[in-house]
This record gives sequence, C-alpha cells and structure tokens, in this order.
Amino acid sequence: MARENYAGGGRAAQYIGDGDMRVVDQPVPTPGPGQVRIKVAFCGICGTDLHILHGNMDSRVETPQAIGHEMSGTIDAVGEGVTALAPGAGVTVMPLDWCGTCPACEAGHQHICQNLDFVGIETTGAMQQFWVVPESLVVPLPEGLALDHAALIEPLAVAAHDVRRSRLTAGETAVIVGGGPIGQLISLVAQGTGARVILAEPNADRRAFAERNGAQVVNPVEENLAAIVEAETGGAGADVVFEVAGIAATALEAPRLARTRGRVVMVAIHAQPVPIDLHRVFWRELELIGARVYEREDFERAIELLASGHVPADELITRKVPLAETKTAFNDLTDARALKVLIDVQN
Amino acid sequence: MARENYAGGGRAAQYIGDGDMRVVDQPVPTPGPGQVRIKVAFCGICGTDLHILHGNMDSRVETPQAIGHEMSGTIDAVGEGVTALAPGAGVTVMPLDWCGTCPACEAGHQHICQNLDFVGIETTGAMQQFWVVPESLVVPLPEGLALDHAALIEPLAVAAHDVRRSRLTAGETAVIVGGGPIGQLISLVAQGTGARVILAEPNADRRAFAERNGAQVVNPVEENLAAIVEAETGGAGADVVFEVAGIAATALEAPRLARTRGRVVMVAIHAQPVPIDLHRVFWRELELIGARVYEREDFERAIELLASGHVPADELITRKVPLAETKTAFNDLTDARALKVLIDVQN
Ligand SMILES: [Zn+2]
Ligand SMILES: [Zn+2]
Ligand SMILES: [Zn+2]
Ligand SMILES: [Zn+2]
Repeated sequence: MARENYAGGGRAAQYIGDGDMRVVDQPVPTPGPGQVRIKVAFCGICGTDLHILHGNMDSRVETPQAIGHEMSGTIDAVGEGVTALAPGAGVTVMPLDWCGTCPACEAGHQHICQNLDFVGIETTGAMQQFWVVPESLVVPLPEGLALDHAALIEPLAVAAHDVRRSRLTAGETAVIVGGGPIGQLISLVAQGTGARVILAEPNADRRAFAERNGAQVVNPVEENLAAIVEAETGGAGADVVFEVAGIAATALEAPRLARTRGRVVMVAIHAQPVPIDLHRVFWRELELIGARVYEREDFERAIELLASGHVPADELITRKVPLAETKTAFNDLTDARALKVLIDVQN
Repeated sequence: MARENYAGGGRAAQYIGDGDMRVVDQPVPTPGPGQVRIKVAFCGICGTDLHILHGNMDSRVETPQAIGHEMSGTIDAVGEGVTALAPGAGVTVMPLDWCGTCPACEAGHQHICQNLDFVGIETTGAMQQFWVVPESLVVPLPEGLALDHAALIEPLAVAAHDVRRSRLTAGETAVIVGGGPIGQLISLVAQGTGARVILAEPNADRRAFAERNGAQVVNPVEENLAAIVEAETGGAGADVVFEVAGIAATALEAPRLARTRGRVVMVAIHAQPVPIDLHRVFWRELELIGARVYEREDFERAIELLASGHVPADELITRKVPLAETKTAFNDLTDARALKVLIDVQN
C-alpha cells in the first residue's frame, strides 16, 4: 500500500464520507527522500471524483481524505536525493503507483499492475495547496504551457491511450459513441492522428462543441447512426469505434458500426456484464479492445497536443472555481453542459 | 452468385430438405473454361453440414443439393485455359468464393467478403464423385500426403486461422475452452507453434484425446478452471484463451482466464448476443478477437502440419463410411465420441 508515500497540507477539500466534503487548513508537510512537494495550481473534477463523493468507492478511500488527480502545479521543495526536479518547475503527476513485482508489472504492463494504487483514490489527492508525492510520478511541463491548460493533461492522456490502443491511423474513420468529456477528447486526439471523426451524442450543446472542433456529428436519437456510418464509408463501416456512452444499447450497437477487421475500443466502464453481438465480432473478424488509464507516452502525447495548441483548452474548461467552492462545483457537474470544471487551488 | 461456376455428378449424397438426404446417380459434368473436374476421394462431415441437414440453413441452400466442403481428391479433367493443374494431381479446395469488389475484398479481407459464397452451402458440394470447381479455389497437395488425411486440411485451416488471429507465440500459455473437433485441432496447432495448452472439456473421451496429444486437461464441471489457470501461470492468467464451447457461461468466463493484455479468441458461434464481462476486458486491457474461416496461408499451414506428421490424423478420423451411408453417418455424429467422420466417396 502506497498511502504512506503521499502527504498533503495547506488548505484542502476533503471527502468526509456520507456524500459530503469539507474545506480544512492543515500543516504543510516536508518531502522525504525521493519525494517532492508540489504547490498545486489547478485540479480538475472527473467522473471518478463524483463516484467517490457519492460513496460508491468507500472501500478504496480513507476518510477524511483530499481527492483529485487531474492536476498541475509547481515544484515547491524537494527531498533528499531528488536532483532532476528543482523548485519553480511546472509539473503534473501521473497518478499511478504500481508494485513492480506482479505478473502484469513483470510483463511491462505496470499501468495496469495487479496491485495498482490510484493516486488520489488510494492516497491523498491534489485538491489541496501542498502535495507531497514520489519524484518518479512527476511529469515536467514544457515552457509556456499554462497551468490551467496543464490540468487537462491527465484526462487527455486517457483519450490518447484509448486512441493508441485502437491503432487508429491517418485517413481512417473513427466513430465515437458519446460526446462527454472523454468522447470529446478522443475526438480531438483522433483528429490529431489524421483520422476523420463521426461523433454520436444526443445532447445538442455537446454536439455543437464536437462540430466546432472538426467532428461530423449525429444525433443518434433522431438519426440512424448505423446507416449514416455505412453511407459515409462507402458501405464498409468504421475502421475504429469508441464506445464511450456506457449504456447497454450502445455496447450492443458498437460492433455493428465497424468494418471487416475493424477495432472497437470499449472505453466506458460497465460494472455488470452486458450483451455483446459476438456474431458480428465473428462475421467481420472484429477486435474488441479494452483500454484503461495510460502509460507515460500517453502523458507525453497529451502534453504535445496541448502545447501545440491542437486542443482548444480554454473552450474545454467550462469554468474555474476557488477551492472553497469545491462541493458546489461537484454538485453542479450533474449539469451535462459543463465539460470540465477546474478547482483553482491557489485561491 | 457463384452457383453457376460449380457442378457435380456421378453418385451424390444430396440434402433434399425437411431433414432428409438421398443418394442419386447423375451424369458426369464437363469442366468449362477456367474450371477443373475433381474425382473426390473423401469428404468430412462438419457442424455446418449438420445444421444444413437439420434445416437451419434452408435460406442459403437450394434443394436438392450435394453438400460437403472438407474434401480431398484428384484432378480428373481440366477446362480450357487451365495449365497449372494436370489430371492425376492430388488436391483439396478452399471453399470460399468472394466477389472481389466489396469494401472487405478491396481491403484485402477477401475471406470475409461482404458477399461471400461458401462453396458447399451456396453451391453444390463435395459429397459426390465428380465435382467441377473454378481452378482458383484448388490447393495442390504435396507428394505423399494420404487423401484421407487431406480431408482434414479444411478444419485444420480453421484452427490455424484461429491461432494466427490470436498472435500466439512459442512459450505462451493457451487455454482452450471446449474439446470438440475444432478445440482439439486448435490444441494441436497451438502446440505446433510452441505454446503450452490447457484444455477444458467435460467429456472424458475428449479429455483423454487431448491429453494423449500433449495438452494439460481440466474437467471444468468438477475442477475450478480459473483457479487452475491462475496457479499454472504464476498468478498471471493465460496469454490466449480460445472460447470454443459456444455456451453463455463459457463466453462469460473466458475473459476471466486471461492475463493483462491477453487475447481472447471467440471461436464458437453465438447466434444471439451474450453477456460479456466488459469490466474484465477494461481492467486487464484484453482483446476479444473474432475469427472466421481461413486464408490461403492457413491452408498452407494446415498442409504443412499434416505432411510433417505433427497432427495425429489417423486418430482424429474416427471412421470412414461409404457414400451410400451418408445419412446414417450424419445421424451418428450427435455421438460426442466421434471426432471426425469421413465419407469415402470412392466407395
Ligand atoms: Zn479522472
Ligand atoms: Zn504490479
Ligand atoms: Zn466445416
Ligand atoms: Zn467481396
């Protein structure tokens, strides 16, 4: 258990159980050997954080605990033996803490370690002013990347990982089923790869966002998505389908949108087994591909996409709220119009 | 429709509809340009043939029609323009007739052409003494490969294709769920690749066959397959799982047997959607892979495995029956002890 390698302090937004949060002030911790102390700038709120607040992950979270893992900040102090990072450097954290010895780690799949601790769930998180973490998790930011934009690196790395797992290449057609934050980021990454994107989403604001950012959009409630995909691909079907909506109907439909030897990436999390059209998988020799979190190269790709301006970061960040308003911000996120809300931990 | 490029004659076992077959004598056809006439030696009976006899494929089969597609024979006569094949040569037929112009064909996936005709289903088949087919479908046999063994090439090519789709390599562990004819052939091909095989099958005779032929066997009714696979792989899980049993319970279990980034090949045909553990697919970043029929290189691989003696052909061929007894042989095949029954079309 990695919990002891993490610490926090200063003003913090903590999950205290029973669907509740509080803001507290705590002493500033000192980084130990191999650790760094980060002065946190921004921390995004993601679906996992909402699950924590709603009590769905109480078996993994100790209370009270600051949560949050989509962050940016600057190095504030370094512990003994830390030489590659110096105070003042802009950084983010790749929030995966693996064991290094299980079969997954030994096979080189550390990011899905069989004993993985997710930093900000199994440890204290980034919704606090000072955050001490192991040096090995820190990813330096390039000069000129704004700290609010840098808080998008972690969710963008999820999308970069999904796209990399799909083996999507330039000139291919990707269908994205679901236009929430991850669906929109996948659309941006896929287009950054040179692929054409068709995004299906019932919410008009989300469709408009996707369309402004280069995707062809479909309202699957009013239009026949399968017929549109077939017509738009000369009868072939999509090279890659990303199932991001996470409902049984879309999991059933996704393979039916793919071409022969097409790839279907199951991005959304289905807690229970759902019916899958294995006959279609067989008939067209499809691949259904699982994708979970990210690897270091996905973080690097996300940074590259943000630093180059390919990702409309300001438009993705619906609003920034001060740390004191964290609980209100969580409650507002049931509103599907907000794509990404950042906690401004500096204020 | 390719039906007109095929013809048959001599003594024939025909499906006549309503679950019935008959044996008739017909004139011997003359091969046209680009066609060859094969004197059929042996023809295996497969699950698809049983489905035809049971009336499940009446929309695809014209009656009366000779069926059968797992065959061997010798070239008997050649039509105009055929120069690569001469009378007397031992041959088999790869029974796929593709359109050449659909998106699948244009992408190089001719074997799963969107307008594929399966020879012996959409055309007259090999359970007759003389069979006229296009030259392009004929695969020559090497010197010394017995014609009864050569009737196993087609089902062995299915297994070779399944294994190739799985990307199984030497030193990996494959779990095969289901020890019918295709499961046994996958076990042999997988071992030919240098992999270790654990085969799960409730039928004792089938387990004994697999064990005699190099597999570690498990009775999944009495033993905990998942626990055995975990123990046998140092807690990792199998590199590849072949789901060949085709029941909902095994489709649900298959992903739970695989290691991180493991591959699960869905070999069995599920006519209806079945519940799949997508959470496990996500958690371990698995790939679920569809595999259908074969490509030319799978036929070549099957021939190589038979010619080298790697496949215990005599043991796989439970019995040979004369053409006149075809209907009885079909009825006997509900008996799970028979692995492969061949029709001896010469008698
Ligand atoms: Zn997140
Ligand atoms: Zn590990
Ligand atoms: Zn067959
Ligand atoms: Zn075709």
